[in-house]
Amino acid sequence: MQQNLSDTVVLLGRTPPTLNALVRDLPDAWTRCNEGDDTWTVYDVIGHLAHGERTDWMPRVRRIFEFGESRPFEPFDRIAQFHESQGKTLSELLDEFAHLRSKNLTELQGLNLRRSDLERRGQHPSFGSVNLSELLATWAAHDMTHLHQISRIMAHQYREAVGPWSKFLGVLHCSGHSASG
Amino acid sequence: MQQNLSDTVVLLGRTPPTLNALVRDLPDAWTRCNEGDDTWTVYDVIGHLAHGERTDWMPRVRRIFEFGESRPFEPFDRIAQFHESQGKTLSELLDEFAHLRSKNLTELQGLNLRRSDLERRGQHPSFGSVNLSELLATWAAHDMTHLHQISRIMAHQYREAVGPWSKFLGVLHCSGHSASG
Repeated sequence: MQQNLSDTVVLLGRTPPTLNALVRDLPDAWTRCNEGDDTWTVYDVIGHLAHGERTDWMPRVRRIFEFGESRPFEPFDRIAQFHESQGKTLSELLDEFAHLRSKNLTELQGLNLRRSDLERRGQHPSFGSVNLSELLATWAAHDMTHLHQISRIMAHQYREAVGPWSKFLGVLHCSGHSASG
Repeated sequence: MQQNLSDTVVLLGRTPPTLNALVRDLPDAWTRCNEGDDTWTVYDVIGHLAHGERTDWMPRVRRIFEFGESRPFEPFDRIAQFHESQGKTLSELLDEFAHLRSKNLTELQGLNLRRSDLERRGQHPSFGSVNLSELLATWAAHDMTHLHQISRIMAHQYREAVGPWSKFLGVLHCSGHSASG
């Protein structure tokens, strides 16, 4: 299916309450453990999502409107959370993410995008020309990538504990599919 | 990490509100589409989780206490939702799942399990001897398997829409890892 703006906005609005319901005030055993060397904890993922709200999605939407393809997007720092989250609790990161997401969706809806706007093009710093529709679809799919990752990080903590059931649990056979999950 | 009963119970309690926040009243484009031939929709997954609450987890806990290894668990029907969900809305399935999960966790906590109880053994119909601790860990990891699957089903709907970003989105490179996700 093609990106549908109202479906995208609805899904983007679901991620903060979903993450609140899933991980707020969970024991550290679920949120502060990772999948081994150089992998992320749930806490790291929430910091990454908050960073994306500040520097990635809406700034790129604005750049498409302001500069089209003449000025590439700023590269997204996919590990910024390792310094930006320092000193913050998981609850603070969840609040920050929810606040920024809500602000960004208000701004997006204020643009009153028309179908023709979705064809506007911008320049990705590594793979070149993209359009606004692809950027918005990616924003939603990026949330799903990290929900996929969070469910896998938490399941990993019980990798041994499930004993012989491990072969039936798909999530335990997923080793991640990209640098960030 | 080994199964920790209180961590397990906390996580099991999070799944109904998480699924409510994520999928209740979402457009059908997200909940009624699957990943292609013989795959499940989000609606199918919620029906499967509700069926598990009725027939799988607590009935197996009871059987361990009543029969130990002398009487195997009933096999779990992993596709029962295709007839059981008929005529029900997604909201009804979410309500049913939440109600059954809450009832099951109340029953589990009422057992006042001691550490030694977690070593009690039962008989799985296909892979033999398992203990209560493994069953409880699997209950929680099974939730994570299906949250992993739901995030993947929804991301799949934007597989084309994200354009060149697809290579950076791990969830789009996950093809599932077991018969049920």
